[in-house]
Amino acid sequence: MLSDIEICRSASLKNISDIALGAGLTTDEFQPLGLHKAKVSLESLKRLEDKPKGKLVLVTAITPTPLGEGKTVTTIGLSQGLAAINQSAMACVRQPSMGPVFGVKGGAAGGGYSQVAPMEQLNLHLTGDIHSVTAAHNLASAAIDARLYHEQREGAEAFEQRSGLKALNIDPKRIVWRRVLDHNDRALRMITVGRNEEGKSINGFEREDGFDISAASELMAILALAENLQDLRKRIGRTVLAYNQNGEPLTAEDFQVAGAMTVTMKDAIEPTLMQTLEGVPTLIHAGPFANIAHGNSSIIADNIALRLADYVVTEGGFGSDMGFEKACNIKATAAKQSPDCAVVVATLRGLKANSGLYDLRPGTPLPDSIFHDDTHALVAGFENLKWHINNVKKYGVPVVVAINRFPQDSTQELEQLSSLISEFDDTVSVAVSEAFGKGGEGAIDLAKAVVASCQNPAQFKPLYTTEQSLEEKLMAVAEVGYGASSLTLSNKAKLQLAEFKKHGFDHLSVCLAKTPLSISTEAHVKGAPTQFDVPVRELKLCAGAGFVYALCGNVMTMPGLPDKPAFMSLDINEDGEITGLS
Amino acid sequence: MLSDIEICRSASLKNISDIALGAGLTTDEFQPLGLHKAKVSLESLKRLEDKPKGKLVLVTAITPTPLGEGKTVTTIGLSQGLAAINQSAMACVRQPSMGPVFGVKGGAAGGGYSQVAPMEQLNLHLTGDIHSVTAAHNLASAAIDARLYHEQREGAEAFEQRSGLKALNIDPKRIVWRRVLDHNDRALRMITVGRNEEGKSINGFEREDGFDISAASELMAILALAENLQDLRKRIGRTVLAYNQNGEPLTAEDFQVAGAMTVTMKDAIEPTLMQTLEGVPTLIHAGPFANIAHGNSSIIADNIALRLADYVVTEGGFGSDMGFEKACNIKATAAKQSPDCAVVVATLRGLKANSGLYDLRPGTPLPDSIFHDDTHALVAGFENLKWHINNVKKYGVPVVVAINRFPQDSTQELEQLSSLISEFDDTVSVAVSEAFGKGGEGAIDLAKAVVASCQNPAQFKPLYTTEQSLEEKLMAVAEVGYGASSLTLSNKAKLQLAEFKKHGFDHLSVCLAKTPLSISTEAHVKGAPTQFDVPVRELKLCAGAGFVYALCGNVMTMPGLPDKPAFMSLDINEDGEITGLS
Repeated sequence: MLSDIEICRSASLKNISDIALGAGLTTDEFQPLGLHKAKVSLESLKRLEDKPKGKLVLVTAITPTPLGEGKTVTTIGLSQGLAAINQSAMACVRQPSMGPVFGVKGGAAGGGYSQVAPMEQLNLHLTGDIHSVTAAHNLASAAIDARLYHEQREGAEAFEQRSGLKALNIDPKRIVWRRVLDHNDRALRMITVGRNEEGKSINGFEREDGFDISAASELMAILALAENLQDLRKRIGRTVLAYNQNGEPLTAEDFQVAGAMTVTMKDAIEPTLMQTLEGVPTLIHAGPFANIAHGNSSIIADNIALRLADYVVTEGGFGSDMGFEKACNIKATAAKQSPDCAVVVATLRGLKANSGLYDLRPGTPLPDSIFHDDTHALVAGFENLKWHINNVKKYGVPVVVAINRFPQDSTQELEQLSSLISEFDDTVSVAVSEAFGKGGEGAIDLAKAVVASCQNPAQFKPLYTTEQSLEEKLMAVAEVGYGASSLTLSNKAKLQLAEFKKHGFDHLSVCLAKTPLSISTEAHVKGAPTQFDVPVRELKLCAGAGFVYALCGNVMTMPGLPDKPAFMSLDINEDGEITGLS
Repeated sequence: MLSDIEICRSASLKNISDIALGAGLTTDEFQPLGLHKAKVSLESLKRLEDKPKGKLVLVTAITPTPLGEGKTVTTIGLSQGLAAINQSAMACVRQPSMGPVFGVKGGAAGGGYSQVAPMEQLNLHLTGDIHSVTAAHNLASAAIDARLYHEQREGAEAFEQRSGLKALNIDPKRIVWRRVLDHNDRALRMITVGRNEEGKSINGFEREDGFDISAASELMAILALAENLQDLRKRIGRTVLAYNQNGEPLTAEDFQVAGAMTVTMKDAIEPTLMQTLEGVPTLIHAGPFANIAHGNSSIIADNIALRLADYVVTEGGFGSDMGFEKACNIKATAAKQSPDCAVVVATLRGLKANSGLYDLRPGTPLPDSIFHDDTHALVAGFENLKWHINNVKKYGVPVVVAINRFPQDSTQELEQLSSLISEFDDTVSVAVSEAFGKGGEGAIDLAKAVVASCQNPAQFKPLYTTEQSLEEKLMAVAEVGYGASSLTLSNKAKLQLAEFKKHGFDHLSVCLAKTPLSISTEAHVKGAPTQFDVPVRELKLCAGAGFVYALCGNVMTMPGLPDKPAFMSLDINEDGEITGLS
């Protein structure tokens, strides 16, 4: 089989204007950026306001393994499968971060014959939205350090007299807004800024700081959750950047930088329209992480797509305990729009890996033995799929299991897995997807199952309401959501809860940041754990995004590069084409 | 008079496709990005190869004052003036950095009725080229720190065995590649990276580092000097990122990151086509500083424009001792293309400021008195203009002086200045430009003077040849170029010259980084100083860009924000339009 980039290059793509017009946009509602990308205007939402909404299909997965279960392949493949059975369909996916493209993971455009195209444009820069997030975020950082410097240098009183501004009296120990870059760069995780040559102070006030990857910026979460540009402006204004010497929060509004941050992100508010290899219109918008943020593409993109297509396929990051949970408890609440159907992607290799019988490590290839028939491991790993099926049902959302087939998979094992699922719950549809190798045609069974499933109206119910306290919400996700036996708040977290309540943040949603590699908070615990505690080390306030995230275990917000990173194989050839991108 | 952004918004701009086709490009040679920007393919150069080249007009200025002399206004205005007298004209300018847009200076699109439009698109992101430079640059930084970490953690031998790569044995004290961001952020000038919690080492190897603004990246200079994508690839491969423990240079090629850096900058190699308010096609490409780099827009843009138009107007940063000198000694050599005419922009206020009779400070408004008739100050300041006229003539380039008129300027003083110039040198043409207030019509006299001047073929002669030693080249710029009485190398600089020679870098050009506010290396020395020394503190190697830059005095490569930065006035209004941008 050809490589992803070879398949993508050999596809005959349509002009993006034809894709846009075919999707039902009018010429003044999109701006082509070259032949294969277009920015979609939010004006379209006004015209389409009264059109009935399509069905929202949310693709999730079992607990992931280092190779990934093919969630994006299934998302793109399903949208193509729906089109193949003459349904009007669109896909909505996140913009890939360039860090992983150059690091370990490679691109995130799907793969095989189910890709967003052109994949090199999707994976590199796209239309600059992540760069805008990075720029707006670091503008706030520069604003904080500049203000700290000027106020400290002169003293509050002199500062006020000269500048005509009110002193903010920033507590340099409580600056909570780190910097961001769209790179995997471990050396930037912990840094000291504002260092000076001996005896000088021209470089500002020395303090500890660090960089996260841009996908971890609160602005990325805000972009994904904002309703429109004015809402983006308000949310940015609410972001808490630091605290003053009296312990009161200082927002981007207080720093008078919220307007400029919004201006910086003005074009980013528009989703980017692309196409799948089979010409299904696909909106790319925002790319928040699914641990310290909610891990789903934007509400704006969903809203546009739902007015244009009968079926909108989107995905939540990691397993259903992560992106799906957050889609239901954070995104659905903000959007007032819940999923009509969930597709749980499972693979034979992934389930066997979830048996705990294989010693898998991130960054190293899977052992050969996992590709051979191994009923024992499959049955053991099936516990994990059962957990995810039950988890989706908790929210009242109909479930379809998509078995993402790899060429090496044995027919016998595939049949065995289908039987296991039917025996476990005959209300759950199952379909084998060969979207990777066959594109939409390989996803026709899955598409039919999804269409059938969407006939039953979902009885959607999130795990908590905004009126509950932050602590109750955390408990709901841990105990009802994960099935943990307890949630333990550190002393620090307890103090923070009290502080957030005092400052009026008790109405926010909660976002548990834990390992995606286990349903529990410990990566090595496989399958479907039951007796476990969720320890909350620390809380982080995202007042603009509208949630508080809880650090449960170690969560990396700035990845590192391995010793032989993916960038080493990238180059241009003599024709100026990109080589080595996967 | 309306504000710049009001004028820009009220202009009726053409569709960029019409601009491109009108300029002589074919439909497959440009890609529209929205209505008012297009990327121009380098394929156009192949088709146009045999077309005769137009005249290259280089706009420079007297020694600048804090307010600027209106060089970009004159560049854009002149291109409009040429069009107004039915000449085929294009302009080529640099992409503005977002740091100054949010800091003190504001945008850099020209002003009044001589602007590149839409100015908010030019000033913010444009087509993402600076973001690409930033991303490619910091990818190299991540590569360096990751390699250092992996080799140090395991030891060279174990690293080689496991990774199959040859150990680079980086000397952590000699990593010469700093990081970059497109912000004014003084706190990042000196930082410590790779810090770890007590007893851990997961965040890498702790070392001193810092950020420059992206315009100061060597990659920005490379983008401006590269001939095409393959040349970009080679130049990036030659960049020296660090030295090994034996003192030998380690290049981007050695780190196996040059390919990925080029891939990251692949779209940036194409100039962006925009238009002036009067529809003159304008290429925007690259934005290197005019102190630590050569301060001119790209060779690629010039090459395309020179095949399409009879007159191409471009500008060099700061006064003629800075951007113009570097255009002649660095860019012209790399491009094998020299200017046919130079326009020296002068203002009454600027000349009076150069008299040394006014106490001007950056960031504070000019005193009222400078706007009143003051023959004494004008005559004294005229010494500076004389110096710049003579400087341009040193290179054998015909001179036109453009007096950029401000509304407050007195007719009497304007006439006086014209007389002073004619008396000083009757071979120099003089024209008053009212491009700011009247657009192209206000620059017709200037356009006529430029056309007349271009009838005399330039006898171009740079100050040095590549065969000369680096030290001889430095002396040539200081003594012949600036008219200094001496050049003094620090001991460090002497050792560096010897090292560069040993590593085969003696053929590179030189780039003197000094204050732009004086012809000498000391900002407070006004007028036309004669007896002064040029002290070279330190040298920096830019092997990819093809020059060594010499730090003469303090040169800031990461600006800071003032206490009341420009970003405070930026916002969006209820219609979603940007307000407060100037």
